[in-house]
Amino acid sequence: MTGPDANFTTEEYLVRIARLRIAMASAGLDAIFVSDPSNMSWVSGYDGWSFYVHQGVILRMEGEPVWWGRAMDATGAYRTVFMAEDASIRSYDDSFVQNPEKHPMRELAALLAELGLENARIGVEMDNYYYTASAHATLIAGLPNATFTDATGMVNWQRAVKSTQEITYMRRAARIVEAMHQRILEVAEPGLRKNQLIAEIYHTAISGADGQWGDYPAIVPMAPSGLDATAPHLTWDDRPMKTGEATFFEIAGAHRRYQCPQSRTLFLGEVPQKYRDAESAVLDAISAGLEQAKPGNQAQDIANAFNATLNKAGFEKDSRCGYAIGISYPPDWGERTISFRRGDTTVLQAGMTFHFMPALWLDDGGLEITEPILITETGHECLCSTPRELWVKS
Amino acid sequence: MTGPDANFTTEEYLVRIARLRIAMASAGLDAIFVSDPSNMSWVSGYDGWSFYVHQGVILRMEGEPVWWGRAMDATGAYRTVFMAEDASIRSYDDSFVQNPEKHPMRELAALLAELGLENARIGVEMDNYYYTASAHATLIAGLPNATFTDATGMVNWQRAVKSTQEITYMRRAARIVEAMHQRILEVAEPGLRKNQLIAEIYHTAISGADGQWGDYPAIVPMAPSGLDATAPHLTWDDRPMKTGEATFFEIAGAHRRYQCPQSRTLFLGEVPQKYRDAESAVLDAISAGLEQAKPGNQAQDIANAFNATLNKAGFEKDSRCGYAIGISYPPDWGERTISFRRGDTTVLQAGMTFHFMPALWLDDGGLEITEPILITETGHECLCSTPRELWVKS
Repeated sequence: MTGPDANFTTEEYLVRIARLRIAMASAGLDAIFVSDPSNMSWVSGYDGWSFYVHQGVILRMEGEPVWWGRAMDATGAYRTVFMAEDASIRSYDDSFVQNPEKHPMRELAALLAELGLENARIGVEMDNYYYTASAHATLIAGLPNATFTDATGMVNWQRAVKSTQEITYMRRAARIVEAMHQRILEVAEPGLRKNQLIAEIYHTAISGADGQWGDYPAIVPMAPSGLDATAPHLTWDDRPMKTGEATFFEIAGAHRRYQCPQSRTLFLGEVPQKYRDAESAVLDAISAGLEQAKPGNQAQDIANAFNATLNKAGFEKDSRCGYAIGISYPPDWGERTISFRRGDTTVLQAGMTFHFMPALWLDDGGLEITEPILITETGHECLCSTPRELWVKS
Repeated sequence: MTGPDANFTTEEYLVRIARLRIAMASAGLDAIFVSDPSNMSWVSGYDGWSFYVHQGVILRMEGEPVWWGRAMDATGAYRTVFMAEDASIRSYDDSFVQNPEKHPMRELAALLAELGLENARIGVEMDNYYYTASAHATLIAGLPNATFTDATGMVNWQRAVKSTQEITYMRRAARIVEAMHQRILEVAEPGLRKNQLIAEIYHTAISGADGQWGDYPAIVPMAPSGLDATAPHLTWDDRPMKTGEATFFEIAGAHRRYQCPQSRTLFLGEVPQKYRDAESAVLDAISAGLEQAKPGNQAQDIANAFNATLNKAGFEKDSRCGYAIGISYPPDWGERTISFRRGDTTVLQAGMTFHFMPALWLDDGGLEITEPILITETGHECLCSTPRELWVKS
């Protein structure tokens, strides 16, 4: 699909592919099989919830990418990918779906051979999502004369610097997550059941904001309270919000699969001093980190400045405090490349987007105040204008 | 966690584990590493959105299962698993997260050795979700004297027959999906933007029904209209619903991770005869299929009866028309074991639950009228009471 409804122009896909081919050439590859849904979409435009079956995009050093998947999903490919040629969409029949006797990767091996890759050097995403151990074993058995190389993250790294159109979508997602936080502030109160709160968050997330529709976030809304907040990835049930408890909201707005996560923490009732101390330490540390967020600096500079300031105030955080963001599908909204942590020497460039996520786990709860940011020519820009503070309702 | 809030009693987990150990013994395994989140939850009770990092549950032939994952998620494990011993929760530090230099499976190999499995026969879920090619390669390199066997689906198959408590949760999820369809009928109309409709569906899904809270469905709501409906796994945008178009709703209610999917199709305006013909054919074929849904029959009996009736009416469906359902996490709400299709000779037993899903793709749209069913001692029960017909609003 290259009409006016397409998310990007064909030219933008060709620029992406040219960039990817440089990385492929440098790794000595003749082709890459891209199975991570975020990477598939970035390379071809494909967009559908079909990543529960084996599928992928084949890119050779010349010609259009080839989408490959279940026959039922080829129709969805025709409606979303930028490729013009019929031969660029290939599929396998339904008898290969979740059938222990017939692995679809046998079909992929045959297709790769047909495409002239029988003796080729082929990159596969060994540690990206949905490329299973069995998929790999079946594929290499089916192409015994090909050489397979681990290309985990190769496409992800090409995604780091965003185009103008991508940044437009990130900004729209930013408006949506702002609206989601606004909705939380309107409805959260003691006695409100957590699932009712999540229902409101979802309603706003999908309704969208600023005239732009909401897509599904790559992770469900997290909103743990009290002791549950010490466990950051628990989801909700129907227990009511309580006075005297902090709840943190780890949520993202999404538009055309671009994700803008942002977290805030809400305290119901009178705030204990230790939360105020933690808030003050985190806000200072965020400012110190953001000062380092500029082109030419390294990713670790942000983490080091953040941690030094936090430690001075007597707090510790041992996990990374940020990661690259952009287009994404479940189960993760990160790009899984650059991390804000000691040792990550990636040089920041204008157009990169990150979730600066200095979450702090206290012994009886969590404090998350986070910022999605864009590296600009001269420094950085916070994508959201959500007030940066511990929220309190009494 | 074994308190009153636990989803299941410790006894129920012990029964499940005993059943699984029979399958393990029959496959000659000393241990299994369970990495599929649905299987992890079924074996241990673990519940969290953390499957975007490597994690799993180790089960040996004796002793408690051992949950293993990221340190940050161990707190969530303490709060959700049934195991009582501290040694049953083990974790790796954050420097192993999405770090190409340090794969967490190195840590798992060391843990398995510590647990006495250095020379053991270990089952791994080669083709289940989230067990990557790289995870497998790293694990076997770290335990060169162990023997690894493909145990894909071994846990899934043990899940097929549901306990009384599981059926209770499935019934609650059934009430929720009924409420979701009811909400669709209330709000759908020409001009309504699709994302607004999805926002309403989500709101009802999470609010729940019948006093029971809604959990997140393992797949987002699908609601394609018109030609998009020929592509079953496209998600929404903001285009408005139109008179003269069919929209199908492939949605599920969820409660405590148990999923009850059900689909219906809504036509806005005057229904063309070919939709009426398709409706009539599908309804007859569903009845024919359901007649075969009883203990002792085979899974394929349902598909064969369905297809024979459909073909007689001049329609064809070449994909499977049903699959096992139960507990699930993204990206799929099926159990990935039994399918209603020719050649699946699995014998139906009381307590099994399925989504009988005879979707029909027409050249200009789709028709989905589906039923979640429970096999009973004497036949079957449709879990939902949603009216079985093509819906029309004019």
